[in-house]
Amino acid sequence: MKHLRGLPLRNVKIDDRFWNHYVPLVETTILPFMWELINDRVPGAEKSWCIHNFKVAAGELIGTHHGMVFQDTDLAKWLEAAAYSLAKHPDPELEKRADYAIDLIGKAQCDDGYLVTYYIITGEERWSDLMEGHELYTAGHMIEAAVAYYEATGKRKFLDIVCRFADCIDRQFGSAPGKMHGYPGHPEIELALIRLAKVTGEERYLRLAEYFIRERGKQPTIFDLQEARKSGKYIFPEFKDFDLDYMQADRPLSEQREAEGHAVRAGYLYSGMADLAAETEDEALFEQCDAIFRDIVDKKMYITGSIGSAAYGERFTSAYDLPNDTNYSESCATVSLAMFANRMFRMTAEAGYADTVEKALYNTLLSGIALDGRHFFYVNPLEVNPVTAEKNPTMRHVKTERQLWFGVACCPPNIARTLASLSNYMYAQDDDTLYVNLFIQNEAETSIAGGTAHIRLDACYPSDGHIGIEVGETDAPFVLAVRHPGTSGKFDLKIDGEVFDGEEKNGYVYISRSWKHGAKIEIDLDTDFRFVYSNPLVDSCAGKTALMKGPWVYCLEEADNGKRLASLYADPDLPVTETKADGLPDGVPAAAFSGMKIVSGNDAALYSEVKPKKEKAELKAVPYCLWNNRGRGEMAVWIKTV
Amino acid sequence: MKHLRGLPLRNVKIDDRFWNHYVPLVETTILPFMWELINDRVPGAEKSWCIHNFKVAAGELIGTHHGMVFQDTDLAKWLEAAAYSLAKHPDPELEKRADYAIDLIGKAQCDDGYLVTYYIITGEERWSDLMEGHELYTAGHMIEAAVAYYEATGKRKFLDIVCRFADCIDRQFGSAPGKMHGYPGHPEIELALIRLAKVTGEERYLRLAEYFIRERGKQPTIFDLQEARKSGKYIFPEFKDFDLDYMQADRPLSEQREAEGHAVRAGYLYSGMADLAAETEDEALFEQCDAIFRDIVDKKMYITGSIGSAAYGERFTSAYDLPNDTNYSESCATVSLAMFANRMFRMTAEAGYADTVEKALYNTLLSGIALDGRHFFYVNPLEVNPVTAEKNPTMRHVKTERQLWFGVACCPPNIARTLASLSNYMYAQDDDTLYVNLFIQNEAETSIAGGTAHIRLDACYPSDGHIGIEVGETDAPFVLAVRHPGTSGKFDLKIDGEVFDGEEKNGYVYISRSWKHGAKIEIDLDTDFRFVYSNPLVDSCAGKTALMKGPWVYCLEEADNGKRLASLYADPDLPVTETKADGLPDGVPAAAFSGMKIVSGNDAALYSEVKPKKEKAELKAVPYCLWNNRGRGEMAVWIKTV
Repeated sequence: MKHLRGLPLRNVKIDDRFWNHYVPLVETTILPFMWELINDRVPGAEKSWCIHNFKVAAGELIGTHHGMVFQDTDLAKWLEAAAYSLAKHPDPELEKRADYAIDLIGKAQCDDGYLVTYYIITGEERWSDLMEGHELYTAGHMIEAAVAYYEATGKRKFLDIVCRFADCIDRQFGSAPGKMHGYPGHPEIELALIRLAKVTGEERYLRLAEYFIRERGKQPTIFDLQEARKSGKYIFPEFKDFDLDYMQADRPLSEQREAEGHAVRAGYLYSGMADLAAETEDEALFEQCDAIFRDIVDKKMYITGSIGSAAYGERFTSAYDLPNDTNYSESCATVSLAMFANRMFRMTAEAGYADTVEKALYNTLLSGIALDGRHFFYVNPLEVNPVTAEKNPTMRHVKTERQLWFGVACCPPNIARTLASLSNYMYAQDDDTLYVNLFIQNEAETSIAGGTAHIRLDACYPSDGHIGIEVGETDAPFVLAVRHPGTSGKFDLKIDGEVFDGEEKNGYVYISRSWKHGAKIEIDLDTDFRFVYSNPLVDSCAGKTALMKGPWVYCLEEADNGKRLASLYADPDLPVTETKADGLPDGVPAAAFSGMKIVSGNDAALYSEVKPKKEKAELKAVPYCLWNNRGRGEMAVWIKTV
Repeated sequence: MKHLRGLPLRNVKIDDRFWNHYVPLVETTILPFMWELINDRVPGAEKSWCIHNFKVAAGELIGTHHGMVFQDTDLAKWLEAAAYSLAKHPDPELEKRADYAIDLIGKAQCDDGYLVTYYIITGEERWSDLMEGHELYTAGHMIEAAVAYYEATGKRKFLDIVCRFADCIDRQFGSAPGKMHGYPGHPEIELALIRLAKVTGEERYLRLAEYFIRERGKQPTIFDLQEARKSGKYIFPEFKDFDLDYMQADRPLSEQREAEGHAVRAGYLYSGMADLAAETEDEALFEQCDAIFRDIVDKKMYITGSIGSAAYGERFTSAYDLPNDTNYSESCATVSLAMFANRMFRMTAEAGYADTVEKALYNTLLSGIALDGRHFFYVNPLEVNPVTAEKNPTMRHVKTERQLWFGVACCPPNIARTLASLSNYMYAQDDDTLYVNLFIQNEAETSIAGGTAHIRLDACYPSDGHIGIEVGETDAPFVLAVRHPGTSGKFDLKIDGEVFDGEEKNGYVYISRSWKHGAKIEIDLDTDFRFVYSNPLVDSCAGKTALMKGPWVYCLEEADNGKRLASLYADPDLPVTETKADGLPDGVPAAAFSGMKIVSGNDAALYSEVKPKKEKAELKAVPYCLWNNRGRGEMAVWIKTV
């Protein structure tokens, strides 16, 4: 088993024509806006109450708790994203805000370390509703933020706070007699505790994470034994309809080999399981994670890298059930999938996992955020007719335009922390090999093989398939491993102008040579437009095709094709050419191709024997991630084929 | 404006090869079973508490109220169906049960006439929650049952009971100062009061119906003024999400010209409006009804004659939004549509309205009931994949097999009362013209034009397009009007072997002649299989076709075609031949036709560039109304076209 790790965030400077539309938004727009929001200073926006709750818990304000039981996580996610930003560039103003928030958190913390404002303020019994109370979930986000902040700034205060909270949790939960035998309804703390164990060297946190993971799903569950489920008094009314599979607790965890239940819960749990497998070198657990991963990518993942086929329960359903218009495909779930896939990659150095990361990042992650950085999708369907979606309650979860913010503000900060730590998905390394996973233009350096490696990656991918990697002069005898993405058949690699035909292993070309004089590596990938088809078992895509270019999935939009996208047919045997789409960023190619359109039938009657007429039609598609940046309109990824 | 009326039920003896599978079930199975059910004597079935509640309200039993606020309607609908049965054939045992129930109802009634057991037993304030309390809805069903029972038996007791209840309501509601200015959240009483007015000759009941109709939707609504909506404490939690359009109250009724909201509420309201238009000769109201009717059949009705495109709210959505798998298409809504359409026909003698009646009855009404008479669908989707529907909560309203009974038992008795009074849809007449609307084999007689008409209709329709009508010898100079169904281009009519080419008017051929020697009329309709297409604006049916034969819509079932119906294509240019389908009743033709099937692609991967292969395939379809009588499996009405 491999144990790859990321590069320090500050060592990777991203400067990519495409990603520059998004990555800088974290600092210029999202963090400042979100700060105002959690301080309830955005006119017209619903109050967050997040800082308010901490002030009340800290005794600085007389008041009551408002918002969700997990409202604290808004601040935690803001702090985590802020930490990644500070890890890359100093920003005294941002750091001052963060320190202020951390001081406030410290004041709100109970003497015994407990730290969830909802339970502190209301006085409701701690740990009395593990299914819905979200205390351990909240703790997880706090811990992740504190670890990130410590790594970014070296300041221990926040880390000490969460260690005290973790100690409090450790005293409460475990297999020992007298301890509570339970685990969170919403996983997240598992992966967070493992991060905490690694940064503090405290083995107890790893064991606690392991306990939460391995205890999961034992029958009868803690959820059945606690009051909420017994009495039918739910915090979230819809829980009355949810079975234990919703929270991955319908059977002992060791028996779970398929992706199940609420997609974000699942993604965080599987990420924690993967972390545990890596930390404990547990091959059986790794193999179980892999079975689940395969179940996702082979049977339950949208072509856009999103997961969650149903809105009610925001969840996985059955294999090959991938409806395009009623699905949930939450932005946060895509983040969790990228996290899970990246962890699997780091244990294996297999490029297939990185293919899933790339698919998630280039499609659904960015579909979640507008080019203005101020509007977000939670839900990312692959097909929208706004007239229908706005009137038919089956699609009441679907927004037909990105929204300013939401009552449950999970997705925007989740997107922000992912963008702010993007290099975690771009590179990985162990002591002698540096892995290049994504072709995002950047300069990077890292300590490796006893020296320092300098990399300059030039790319305009996937607009263009040509990638340059300049390796700086160094005595360090490290190996450079470049990923051959699954989206390209071609992978031509030259070093200093000479064809390199080193063997490819698990989707990586390993370049093992002296870098004493540096090297100029050129890679050519096939990023031609290509038509893709679903497995014949996917009913919703039968007889349809999707257009792709590299990892980008394309879609039809009303802005380019008019209304009635369902009446369009593509002819995949005809060529696709590059074109421009008005209103999209320069350098992002649109696709022009030919097909047919149902132009008329009996247009007066709802049903008739008049066979509809088709005519030749020219179609235009744009990257799915950019849809809805030109106003409200129909959108479709999957297109009928002639 | 015409004022057609039905024939007395006892004057029409149905003996039809196809309908004999269903109509006798009312007496042999449904009424006895339902009686046991409302008496809580069916082992394994959830308790109805219906008779129990009446006993408690009557003081015969100490106890509390159980079940829904509108639980009384189960008994009302049973009585109504029983009445129609008794109107056709004496059945002393059935009449004894009905009289027992009526006695009990009488004992439960308050001194002032009020009669809803929920409010009587709980002591909650009457009329305090018109939106959800269903008191007027319950009254409506009681009144309909009592009118039917009086017409069937001549006994006045039940009629007197509901008159006292109607008087109680009339004292409570109205425009006069001091009266409550309100109307029901769930329409039904409007049409019932008009029936009551007609049978009693009491004008007040008509005026009360008119008040409820014309008061509807005035702003602010009574619902906004009453406590439930103000306080947010709902009987039905989902009401918090519903706007006033759900109950056709978002604008004054006079401004409503499109079908809107909960489909059953809508159908009952529009039926009441049509009745009022007829009774008051209100042409403007008729024209408004017609606009709504056209909105339904031109934009919001499934090809199977069902309505309600969304499950949440069980409601109409937007024009042309007709999803085939997530829809509601409630059996009761189809009943209400048939009622509305029949009323429109009776004011116009236009055959188009009867086309809708026929479509509803031959498809969704019967889809709602199994051939065993003991299993029912509430929800009638046009496309089901059981594996998906059982796991994906978006389709949690969909049952993949007909169920024994339901918690809210509205549909089974609604189907029963419709089957029991089927002749209401078969014939209509005024003083000199007898209209033949449906081609169901029967013998009928009626008083008309000063004499008696005898009709014997022989048919095996739509299995066969040949229809014989034998008119008995009579001096009565009545006109026979035979409907030319919109599903047949051909309408060849012979009288005593001679071609008759009388003019067709509004879809009827009027035969005005002497019946002194009787006559043998032969009609030939085109009932060949035909492929039908949707309007190009219906996204869900774009590129698809449906097979029909007469009014029957056909569907593919897994039993005949294997799994993956979404992978099948029909070639509508090839002939369709008649065949048999195992396990369906004799005499019901299946359809065999040719097309293609997607047989494979990259069957291992979820997405790939391997273009799926199609092969020639033979398809078999059966009438939609009979689907799911051969076990659980996939079903689809709309088929892709090559």
